[in-house]
Amino acid sequence: MTDFVSRALHPDGNDWIVRSLLDIDFYKPNMDYYEAEFLPDVRVTYGLINRSRQFPLALMVDEAEFRRQLDHVRGLTISSTEAAFLSGMDAYGTRLFPERQVERFKKLRLCEYKLDRDGEQYTFTVSGPNRDAISWWETIAMCILLELKTRAVLKFMKRHEVEILYARAKDKLYNKLKLLKQYPGIRIVNFGTRRRHSHLWEKFVSEMFLEVLGPQLSGVSNVLHAMQLGVTPMGTNAHQLPMQHVTLAYPDPEAMRQAPYQVLRNWSSIFPQPLRIELQDAYTTDAYHRYMPEDLAYEIARTYRGARQDSGDPSEECRKQIAWYERHGVDPREKLYIFSDGLTHMDIVKLYLEFKDQIMMSFGWGTNATNDFHGCHPDADAMFTHLAGVTLTWDQALSGMSLVCKVVEVNGTRAVKLPNNPKKITGDQTLVPFYKVVYAVGDQVSQEVLV
Amino acid sequence: MTDFVSRALHPDGNDWIVRSLLDIDFYKPNMDYYEAEFLPDVRVTYGLINRSRQFPLALMVDEAEFRRQLDHVRGLTISSTEAAFLSGMDAYGTRLFPERQVERFKKLRLCEYKLDRDGEQYTFTVSGPNRDAISWWETIAMCILLELKTRAVLKFMKRHEVEILYARAKDKLYNKLKLLKQYPGIRIVNFGTRRRHSHLWEKFVSEMFLEVLGPQLSGVSNVLHAMQLGVTPMGTNAHQLPMQHVTLAYPDPEAMRQAPYQVLRNWSSIFPQPLRIELQDAYTTDAYHRYMPEDLAYEIARTYRGARQDSGDPSEECRKQIAWYERHGVDPREKLYIFSDGLTHMDIVKLYLEFKDQIMMSFGWGTNATNDFHGCHPDADAMFTHLAGVTLTWDQALSGMSLVCKVVEVNGTRAVKLPNNPKKITGDQTLVPFYKVVYAVGDQVSQEVLV
Repeated sequence: MTDFVSRALHPDGNDWIVRSLLDIDFYKPNMDYYEAEFLPDVRVTYGLINRSRQFPLALMVDEAEFRRQLDHVRGLTISSTEAAFLSGMDAYGTRLFPERQVERFKKLRLCEYKLDRDGEQYTFTVSGPNRDAISWWETIAMCILLELKTRAVLKFMKRHEVEILYARAKDKLYNKLKLLKQYPGIRIVNFGTRRRHSHLWEKFVSEMFLEVLGPQLSGVSNVLHAMQLGVTPMGTNAHQLPMQHVTLAYPDPEAMRQAPYQVLRNWSSIFPQPLRIELQDAYTTDAYHRYMPEDLAYEIARTYRGARQDSGDPSEECRKQIAWYERHGVDPREKLYIFSDGLTHMDIVKLYLEFKDQIMMSFGWGTNATNDFHGCHPDADAMFTHLAGVTLTWDQALSGMSLVCKVVEVNGTRAVKLPNNPKKITGDQTLVPFYKVVYAVGDQVSQEVLV
Repeated sequence: MTDFVSRALHPDGNDWIVRSLLDIDFYKPNMDYYEAEFLPDVRVTYGLINRSRQFPLALMVDEAEFRRQLDHVRGLTISSTEAAFLSGMDAYGTRLFPERQVERFKKLRLCEYKLDRDGEQYTFTVSGPNRDAISWWETIAMCILLELKTRAVLKFMKRHEVEILYARAKDKLYNKLKLLKQYPGIRIVNFGTRRRHSHLWEKFVSEMFLEVLGPQLSGVSNVLHAMQLGVTPMGTNAHQLPMQHVTLAYPDPEAMRQAPYQVLRNWSSIFPQPLRIELQDAYTTDAYHRYMPEDLAYEIARTYRGARQDSGDPSEECRKQIAWYERHGVDPREKLYIFSDGLTHMDIVKLYLEFKDQIMMSFGWGTNATNDFHGCHPDADAMFTHLAGVTLTWDQALSGMSLVCKVVEVNGTRAVKLPNNPKKITGDQTLVPFYKVVYAVGDQVSQEVLV
């Protein structure tokens, strides 16, 4: 059992945030396998972006400590237990990784990183060929920076404040789970690794999920926690794959429009059906469907297990997906739709009730599961005045952040991501107008990005 | 920091409930000194009484474990640190205990006890001359039985239930303290040792008091915790003193009526003014004032610091005490009135607002401070079905109990306590009518005894 209060009040210099290379989202090993097979020599650059500018992270987090935590991870390798877990991975009906990929895992070491300051923010970038597992840094860098921010705030709290903070957060979490339990058809996946308050809290949350939700917990994205708790690791792929193919096709409009479908074909050639999940919104879901060749659409509608929704209005996107399945002669009730865009427990219930007779669903629950401390500090609305230049209330200071780590360059070409929600656009802003023309993206509706 | 969840889920056979002979209310060493000085050869018998009959303690608590915990205390002695603390006790403006009493403390060993079963309840009695510190067992036996009851319930809880139970109890406690903090004039004493959920929880509560209430915490009754936390131990005397003097005077009505005043005279001969607190209700407060000689009344009104209210309607009793001071030419605003009868935090605020301009007050807060878990179990209203013969909800099973340990016999004569509330009468029921005649006690108003 974790004593959060003691850990907060008596921080230990050796309290490493990331202690295992498997303390990542499961899509990372999957995509590493994909990249090793299909894009090994492509040189990529990833950059960390803090969309929550109200957090002056460079003022809150000590650079030396940030480096120390990052360097610690560079010293890690995948242990023999972890390698055995990955090589035996058959939760999806078949052995997942071939021997050559397991060997890659065993040799995996994180590459060098570049850390600088840009005013009140840090710039963190990693570059190199995919074969060096550059993207493995993504969730790790995010987890470290988020948890250092957490510690920077906890450090100034008194004991009773820490006691009440965690007491209320536990009760708040439990009340959410109690609501979800009233709908036994709801299936949850803990997707909250990248947005977690701390590694200990993420694990606590998964343990509560497991005990309270029982079979309603389908799995967790965190590979290490999946192994430790004996649940299924969950996750497939992310925007980094279509972004690489599209950037490689730049500036040929037709090649760019067709590039995302390479992911679909490649992916299904190496992954079994349970892991075939479309991610359609890298350049808007509408464009994705508009330019998809009809023969491919019929094939994907049949051979893929489902799709993941990560931007745009979730109800509307789900309705469109159901209509798409029907247009292609597939019963949507045999397909899975995964919601994963900043869900609250109320969103989950609402979406479940709306679609439960129309399509199978899974809910990838993130920040609101592993980093919801709103209203938990006993003096939530008082100003956190302990760090110069930081003007936040305690409640705000303890909030989750919209921190992402995205592809910024592929073989020397600047990359762009253009999802359904313009507030989630990443990459070179000067290229965005061109991308909008390529994918015929008109006016988009902005949605607040909270997490 | 105490990890309550781990302690509950992984009980350790060596998790002794009482680990120090100072883990008692401060009035015990004070009364031991009194008894050693004035009643050393009087033979007394104390008996444990569970007024909360809905708890079939003999079904809930294993007898062998009860004995093991009691026997452990018989092996304890007052350590040199503890003796140094007692011998240096000068929190009340003067060195409290003379060397001969400190020597008594150093030699203190708890006497043999008698433990039997009476149906679904235990009978616990101790007997012997006061010089053997018989009454030292009082709060110790209560604490052990209460905590074994707590453990008997916690044992059947799942991890998430324990997590939420303690999380909610912490938040509940904090919300009470927050309310009390809004009235900086309110002075609190933690009197909850005898009714505590567990020794760890009592200490946690005192620690929260100290941090959140600051100077509003006057002290704690628990001598060990006072020493550990560096606060003032608080407490003076209890009904056991007038009960002994009165029982010794039995059956002479006039002698019985005058007997309680012997305590006043003896007490002030050995204790300084700050510790001179009247306890008036052993045979009703009305009788106490009715039969008190007027010259004594004038003297006590001047030389005593105040009085403690432990039964009857607290507002009414306080009003009577104020009137009594005024009748005897003393400004009640220079006197202290201590409320100690099953106070909730709302009672405290209410009484404070009613009397703040009329008399000084202190609030001895017990069960509602150290054993309030109402509504904290996540399934509070479900039946606790884990022990045969126990029909309680989880909420009830986790409630505090009205457990007392009282004088039942003095030099072979059965004793009676006849306080303002007839539900708090203890002792030989066949003698009660006689006592009522002696003290001219008419019809009394019953008040529910919750704690």
